[in-house]
Amino acid sequence: MLSDIEIAQNAKMKHIRDVAASIGIAEDDLEFYGKYKAKIASELWGKVKDNENGKLILVTAINPTPAGEGKTTTTIGLGDALTNMGKKCVLALREPSLGPVMGIKGGAAGGGYSQVVPMEDINLHFTGDMHAITAANNLLSAMIDNHIHQGNALDIDVTNIVWKRVVDMNDRALRHVVVGMGGKVNGIPREDGFMITVASEVMAILCLANDLEDLKKRLGEIIIGYNRSGEPVKASDLKAQGAMAALLKDAIKPNLVQTLEYTPCFIHGGPFANIAHGCNSVQATKLAMKLSDYTITEAGFGADLGAEKFMDIKCRMAGISPDAVVIVATVRALKYNGGVKKTDLKEENVDALKKGIVNLEKHIKNMKSFGVPVVVAVNRFDTDSEEELNTVIERCHELGAECALSEVFAKGGEGGLDLAEKVISAVENQKADFKPAYDTDMSIKDKINEIVTKIYGGKGVNYTPKAQKQIARLEELGLDKKPVCMAKTQYSLSDNAKLLGRPENFEITVSNVRVSNGAGFIVVETGNIMVMPGLPKVPAADNIDVDADGKITGLF
Amino acid sequence: MLSDIEIAQNAKMKHIRDVAASIGIAEDDLEFYGKYKAKIASELWGKVKDNENGKLILVTAINPTPAGEGKTTTTIGLGDALTNMGKKCVLALREPSLGPVMGIKGGAAGGGYSQVVPMEDINLHFTGDMHAITAANNLLSAMIDNHIHQGNALDIDVTNIVWKRVVDMNDRALRHVVVGMGGKVNGIPREDGFMITVASEVMAILCLANDLEDLKKRLGEIIIGYNRSGEPVKASDLKAQGAMAALLKDAIKPNLVQTLEYTPCFIHGGPFANIAHGCNSVQATKLAMKLSDYTITEAGFGADLGAEKFMDIKCRMAGISPDAVVIVATVRALKYNGGVKKTDLKEENVDALKKGIVNLEKHIKNMKSFGVPVVVAVNRFDTDSEEELNTVIERCHELGAECALSEVFAKGGEGGLDLAEKVISAVENQKADFKPAYDTDMSIKDKINEIVTKIYGGKGVNYTPKAQKQIARLEELGLDKKPVCMAKTQYSLSDNAKLLGRPENFEITVSNVRVSNGAGFIVVETGNIMVMPGLPKVPAADNIDVDADGKITGLF
Repeated sequence: MLSDIEIAQNAKMKHIRDVAASIGIAEDDLEFYGKYKAKIASELWGKVKDNENGKLILVTAINPTPAGEGKTTTTIGLGDALTNMGKKCVLALREPSLGPVMGIKGGAAGGGYSQVVPMEDINLHFTGDMHAITAANNLLSAMIDNHIHQGNALDIDVTNIVWKRVVDMNDRALRHVVVGMGGKVNGIPREDGFMITVASEVMAILCLANDLEDLKKRLGEIIIGYNRSGEPVKASDLKAQGAMAALLKDAIKPNLVQTLEYTPCFIHGGPFANIAHGCNSVQATKLAMKLSDYTITEAGFGADLGAEKFMDIKCRMAGISPDAVVIVATVRALKYNGGVKKTDLKEENVDALKKGIVNLEKHIKNMKSFGVPVVVAVNRFDTDSEEELNTVIERCHELGAECALSEVFAKGGEGGLDLAEKVISAVENQKADFKPAYDTDMSIKDKINEIVTKIYGGKGVNYTPKAQKQIARLEELGLDKKPVCMAKTQYSLSDNAKLLGRPENFEITVSNVRVSNGAGFIVVETGNIMVMPGLPKVPAADNIDVDADGKITGLF
Repeated sequence: MLSDIEIAQNAKMKHIRDVAASIGIAEDDLEFYGKYKAKIASELWGKVKDNENGKLILVTAINPTPAGEGKTTTTIGLGDALTNMGKKCVLALREPSLGPVMGIKGGAAGGGYSQVVPMEDINLHFTGDMHAITAANNLLSAMIDNHIHQGNALDIDVTNIVWKRVVDMNDRALRHVVVGMGGKVNGIPREDGFMITVASEVMAILCLANDLEDLKKRLGEIIIGYNRSGEPVKASDLKAQGAMAALLKDAIKPNLVQTLEYTPCFIHGGPFANIAHGCNSVQATKLAMKLSDYTITEAGFGADLGAEKFMDIKCRMAGISPDAVVIVATVRALKYNGGVKKTDLKEENVDALKKGIVNLEKHIKNMKSFGVPVVVAVNRFDTDSEEELNTVIERCHELGAECALSEVFAKGGEGGLDLAEKVISAVENQKADFKPAYDTDMSIKDKINEIVTKIYGGKGVNYTPKAQKQIARLEELGLDKKPVCMAKTQYSLSDNAKLLGRPENFEITVSNVRVSNGAGFIVVETGNIMVMPGLPKVPAADNIDVDADGKITGLF
């Protein structure tokens, strides 16, 4: 089989004008970025907002393992399958970050014959959204340090500035820095650090904003730090929100591309799935729903993090809800959860599978608790035995979930027909009755407790003294009646990455609680959350190249 | 009169497809960025490279003063005037940097009725070139620190790394930083600093590269620092050039926009005019020459810095030469050079004018020494008296230069007809016989001496002991046979910003000499060169805003 980039480069793409036309978008509502990418003019929303909503399908997964699940690939393949079946289908996906592309992860536009194209553009600068977010974030940083340098009229406490600079790069040397060195004319020295761009609150805001006006309002609400009396200082106190919004005026418009099989795909926004909510933009999802019979979207990491936040943060804020949830799993990953080593996953092992399938079971139960029908997509590998596959299918049926085998990586949309049929069946035959996991009016601790006990399956929550104090302060400031955004390892239902399967009787320890006031949620951190990755010993960048004709190699 | 942004927003722009068509570019050779911006596909060069070259006109200026000269505005107005006269004219300008737009400077797309549009886009993210340069620069930085962290096989001396990170922001707190703090897993602590993006050698390389292959080769030649034996370590030693070039594969393509009067305008690349050569890209200029009768381009700062480097660096490397040079001056600026205070410039003062005109005289003489005809453009103000204007005109004629009055700010191309006629006359009646100021085979000190004595009018050069050592080391390494790029204050012909007019008998002190090995020149620094500006007390960003419809205000 060809490599991902070879398949992508061999693709005969349609002009994006024609892809847009297939869902009724006129050329006048497109802003082209070359022939194969376009931004959607903000005027389109006004024209379609009274359309009936298409069905919304969320694709999520079991806890990720080194064995790989193929969530994005499945999402794309499902979309192509629905298109093949004559359904008007639109995808709504996240934008990849440049940093990991140069590091270890490679691209993030699907794989095999289920890809979104142009793959290189999507993985590199795309339409510049990430860069605009970086610029808006760092403008605010420059305005903070300039304000202090120019006399600090707001009395900002330099030891309590929570706003960090960002770069869209894996650059561990920027995790902890001292800025403002070199004497008086060069600013005030203080400890600081850089995050990767997707961790910026600006990204979360862009993804949750309804429109440019809402975006600007949220940007102004960002709490950049505290003054020496402990009161919050906001971006609006620095008059930064207007210029920040001006920098984001194009970034806020959804981007349209296509799959290898010409299914229209919005790729817009990509916040972290730990310190942020991990879903593409509200604007893209809502627009896709107005233009399609079926909108397929995904959320970051496993269902305990990504899907929970999709439900409790994104859907709640946007006033939408899914009509079905697809949980992606593989036999290999379930065996890994059952204790099989990565090197032994090719061998049949029904016992280990039965042991590890508890992870999938818990996620099925969780998704059903949100009141939505569940379909399990088993992303099939050659090494999966019939007995292993049947074991998974039977268990799903026992739990009241449909189960489909998917071969979209090797076969594209054709490999997703079984899955598509079962999704349609679930949507048509099971009525969704969406309810979030908790009420935002509950106390911070009660909200956390609901998630930990109901979703993670833990028995309780511990708080460090620092977290206790932070919660009390947020309550004093009246900033506590917001959804909580859990930052936790993605590898386990617990906060211990090594506890695979379906851990029980564990407690979660909350070490840090802070507000993303513009985004509108409370970030609850358990353990150390990495907001700036590093490059590996041999970075992917070592092998990325471009020839004289502009053809890129080494992206994967 | 309306503000610049009001004029720009009232403009009825043509679709960029039609602007391109006016100079014979087919839609197939365009990559649209919305309706009013396009990148030129690399294939176009092959189709036009055998065309005869149009005439190349360089617009430069006297030493800048706080009174303002209007170089870019004159460049644009001259282009529109030539278009009005039925000449096929193409502009080739520099891209503005985002940082100063948010700081003090405002936009850089001309002014009044001589502007390039869409003004907001050009001044903000444009087509993303600056962001791509930032990313390529910072990828190399991340790879350097990662290499050291992963064992430092190249034995890089962490106290002698010359490659800095960049942001496209005025952010003084990043001038001097310590990176790699926070313990072993977070890298190796070292002193570092950020520059503004336009100061990156990547920008200079992009502007001087002939094509993508040349770009990649030059990126590989960047010297990022030295190993502990004092030998240069190159970007190619880190295998960074392929991924860097991949990040720049679109940025290297010239951008096409239009003036208010529909003259096609390439805006591409904008390196610093002190530590780099200060001209738009070689590719854009050469392409413009193939598509026009007249190509109008400009260079940064005054003629002593910008035009000298245009001649000695850009023209030499690109194998092109100007057919005429326009020197922009104002009566106000010449009076300022003659000692009049900024607040008194409105009053007639012929004596001061006669005293200050020596600055213009020296620049005329200098430009003529390159073997090219000179036209002086007096950018006219209401407060200029007839006698003052006549004084300038007469002096120009005595020195063998044409002199035209220009009113392009208030009148657009119509205000530049006199200038356009005189440029045409100079080109048609005076044969250019281009010769650079020095030979690259000369020693570094001899090259510097030629510039200082011939162009600046000084009597000699002093070297700090550090600079002496650096020159000796570059000679040892065989890196000395390149053009020199002088980094000097733009406000004076000398290296003392306060010496206005035409200083004599001064000496220049060279404090730092280093090689931009990928760009292909030796940077010679006199005094402290600012590579990271700061924001002022009230940043322009405070007043920049965007409304619900995406309309921007507060840019100027």
